[in-house]
Amino acid sequence: MAQRITGVLSPVVTPFKADLSPDTERFVRQCKWLVANQVGLAVFGTNSEANSLAVDERMQLLDQLVEAGVDPARMMPGTGCCALTDSVRLTAHAVKLGCAGALMLPPFYYKGVSDEGLFRNFAEIVERVGDARLQIYLYHIPQVSQVPIGLKLIERLLKAYPKNIAGTKDSSGDWNNTKATLDAFAGEGFDVFPGSETFLLAGLRNGAKGCISATANVNPAAIHKLYAEWTSDSAERQQAGLDRIRNLFQKFPMIPAMKRAIAHWSGHVAWATVRPPLVELDAKQAAALIADLEQAGFSMPGLKG
Amino acid sequence: MAQRITGVLSPVVTPFKADLSPDTERFVRQCKWLVANQVGLAVFGTNSEANSLAVDERMQLLDQLVEAGVDPARMMPGTGCCALTDSVRLTAHAVKLGCAGALMLPPFYYKGVSDEGLFRNFAEIVERVGDARLQIYLYHIPQVSQVPIGLKLIERLLKAYPKNIAGTKDSSGDWNNTKATLDAFAGEGFDVFPGSETFLLAGLRNGAKGCISATANVNPAAIHKLYAEWTSDSAERQQAGLDRIRNLFQKFPMIPAMKRAIAHWSGHVAWATVRPPLVELDAKQAAALIADLEQAGFSMPGLKG
Repeated sequence: MAQRITGVLSPVVTPFKADLSPDTERFVRQCKWLVANQVGLAVFGTNSEANSLAVDERMQLLDQLVEAGVDPARMMPGTGCCALTDSVRLTAHAVKLGCAGALMLPPFYYKGVSDEGLFRNFAEIVERVGDARLQIYLYHIPQVSQVPIGLKLIERLLKAYPKNIAGTKDSSGDWNNTKATLDAFAGEGFDVFPGSETFLLAGLRNGAKGCISATANVNPAAIHKLYAEWTSDSAERQQAGLDRIRNLFQKFPMIPAMKRAIAHWSGHVAWATVRPPLVELDAKQAAALIADLEQAGFSMPGLKG
Repeated sequence: MAQRITGVLSPVVTPFKADLSPDTERFVRQCKWLVANQVGLAVFGTNSEANSLAVDERMQLLDQLVEAGVDPARMMPGTGCCALTDSVRLTAHAVKLGCAGALMLPPFYYKGVSDEGLFRNFAEIVERVGDARLQIYLYHIPQVSQVPIGLKLIERLLKAYPKNIAGTKDSSGDWNNTKATLDAFAGEGFDVFPGSETFLLAGLRNGAKGCISATANVNPAAIHKLYAEWTSDSAERQQAGLDRIRNLFQKFPMIPAMKRAIAHWSGHVAWATVRPPLVELDAKQAAALIADLEQAGFSMPGLKG
């Protein structure tokens, strides 16, 4: 087995053209900028508006990234869909391309489903993809999916498929849950990634392998720096700096705010575009966000062009 | 414009083979049985496990129904997906085939989205499908989708697209909401269908055009009979009879229970199969359900074979 992916990953925001089709050229450029900033590519996450993209659109974007020379060993695409057949198709495609892992939502239409039903979903995907290279990262984001992935389910999956169940992204925002997951599984070949850099330092101190965070789209270098220097004396101060920037984005709807910042610092206004049901920031919000960020000394070096 | 679809519709349960692929032959047979019992086909609803099917699987099943001679004028397929591009593709296909309407979920991944974002989703679908025949029925099922479709959104959509916004299915189970929707819009060319026959009589007395109900999968003739005879002296007694049968199913998870009943009365055990994340009834549940139904004198005439 190849070495597993670690460090800071970004659920890469997806650029759209005016007709709402994905803009491959800007997507490739953004991914290369992130990789140049030492940040891995959890493309097709919640912040990527992945579920607002058809499966074919996601497969095509992944193909185009690889064709453009972006290293699939730096990629952990989201591949968990409501339909088992979609999840299998997308996951098999990611594995075939050599992606480091697959970040997998549970099927999220039905609510209150049993652990048995969720186990069967993931088990079927493992069996049908049928590839030793498959590395699944279970995606726990109950406030959005409304379908939690609990510790008992992780335990059962890990026991049944120890070579394919590689870890989890915990986006619950609940440190107690992240800590319990780390305490239960870290060190067993199960890699835990908090879903926000807010928990990066605490996570690393408790055995996490990095983080997968929205804000890594806009603040990649600083977040990676803390990952690289977490044992240094400056770690607490660095964490406080990351939190300050994140808080500025969180005053607004996160996805439109990040896209607006990228539009501003890249010079490509089309970056602000989102697909429905999301709505871009209005002019007043946009101005307030950029003013806040500039006042904090924030910028996105190397993005222009 | 053709006359709009009315009466009792069933969110037709989807039969799977052992490998979880859809069983076209049993699907066609089930749809023909429902139509023979005067019930319309809201295929690809919540009870159809529609979101557990890929878009291509849904399009193929719809093609196969029409090819098998089932009248598309009796169909209101579910076509609302998380991805705008999927919704447009599936809806355009349904319109091209001549379906009476399209039952449309809001995009349901993101929670707490604005009415503006939901309006844009439906508006884009109307504009992109661009067909005067398109009849959209807005699907309000907040306990599952977690994304409600409120009265203000309906009003705005109806004003913007009076020829394409045809009605709603209200599956909230909240009679106050159904009544408020009827009071606000019934008679304006906007057709309200309660999402359960529990509200069939009350709905019809307040201007509803029928109902779209899970239980129409298993009890179609009796539900249609109340629809046809709702002004008769026996209406209250008929409603009570429908409620009794529905309550027997509701003692169990609804979709697996209905599939188990169809397996029993059709003689095809494979009907019990569900896709993950759902789980079929266990043997004890199945025996209890069938015993309850037989004791109530329930059967599914004409299904065997």
